[in-house]
Amino acid sequence: MPSNKAFGAENQQERLKMASWISGFTDGEGCFTVSVIENPTTRFGKQLFPEFVITQGAKSFNALLEIRQFFGCGSIVLNKRYDNHNEHLYRYCVRSVSELGEKIIPFFEKFPLRTHKQNDFLIFKKVVRMMARKEHLTEKGWNKILKFASKTNRKKSRF
Amino acid sequence: MPSNKAFGAENQQERLKMASWISGFTDGEGCFTVSVIENPTTRFGKQLFPEFVITQGAKSFNALLEIRQFFGCGSIVLNKRYDNHNEHLYRYCVRSVSELGEKIIPFFEKFPLRTHKQNDFLIFKKVVRMMARKEHLTEKGWNKILKFASKTNRKKSRF
Repeated sequence: MPSNKAFGAENQQERLKMASWISGFTDGEGCFTVSVIENPTTRFGKQLFPEFVITQGAKSFNALLEIRQFFGCGSIVLNKRYDNHNEHLYRYCVRSVSELGEKIIPFFEKFPLRTHKQNDFLIFKKVVRMMARKEHLTEKGWNKILKFASKTNRKKSRF
Repeated sequence: MPSNKAFGAENQQERLKMASWISGFTDGEGCFTVSVIENPTTRFGKQLFPEFVITQGAKSFNALLEIRQFFGCGSIVLNKRYDNHNEHLYRYCVRSVSELGEKIIPFFEKFPLRTHKQNDFLIFKKVVRMMARKEHLTEKGWNKILKFASKTNRKKSRF
């Protein structure tokens, strides 16, 4: 019978495999974006929404569940699709600045992306770090973040 | 100074991380297909092309290079794109039945996919194993393979 130590090593290896799989899957299907959304109640009339997202068809819902379980944060949202689509979509997303800063970003520092998406991640990381330091509340910081946000891969602005 | 053993363990861990990353990346961007192509010189007038493919934009060419280096087989082909596309595409593909059977399939048995794409892989594996045993040269085997091929994800038939 294997010792507890052996079990521990096995679990550690499984966790390493899962982590590296998530890094690869994110290189394929993941997205790091910073949206800018109209919100008249905020200081600059707009609000920043940094978001880490992985989208999958309903058939691969379980893979998103595994990812949420691994990170211990984020939510899975259903996007219903009709018209020429075989299945609905699910989005795993993490939006909280503290969870992005404490869980998602350190993870991708340890298990880095290998495609061009790494550039998006590096910009995203800068924005989240600035937001965590409340720099988006100053005009200088806000403008700097807007410049960074326009460079993230989806370039989404919801005005 | 770390011993050779320590270096070995480190390399082994790096290889495990790379392998799991490839599994995740394939879950996102990979494709297992069996094409059926017109070829009057063959027994049934058609030819089977099993193919493992990962496609990426030119900016992520290096990730494909890393994958080819890891597997030690396959080729990277440029697909030029114009009209509304920012960059050309590169396809990493493995087509040889022996390399698929001896390298690609055992790899994905050891580092299994976690999305619905695993179903495509299992069908693909059956076809390649049958081809390796030359079962596609009998009418019974040929018809069975055609049925499997129609189930692979791209359902591509080049007649």
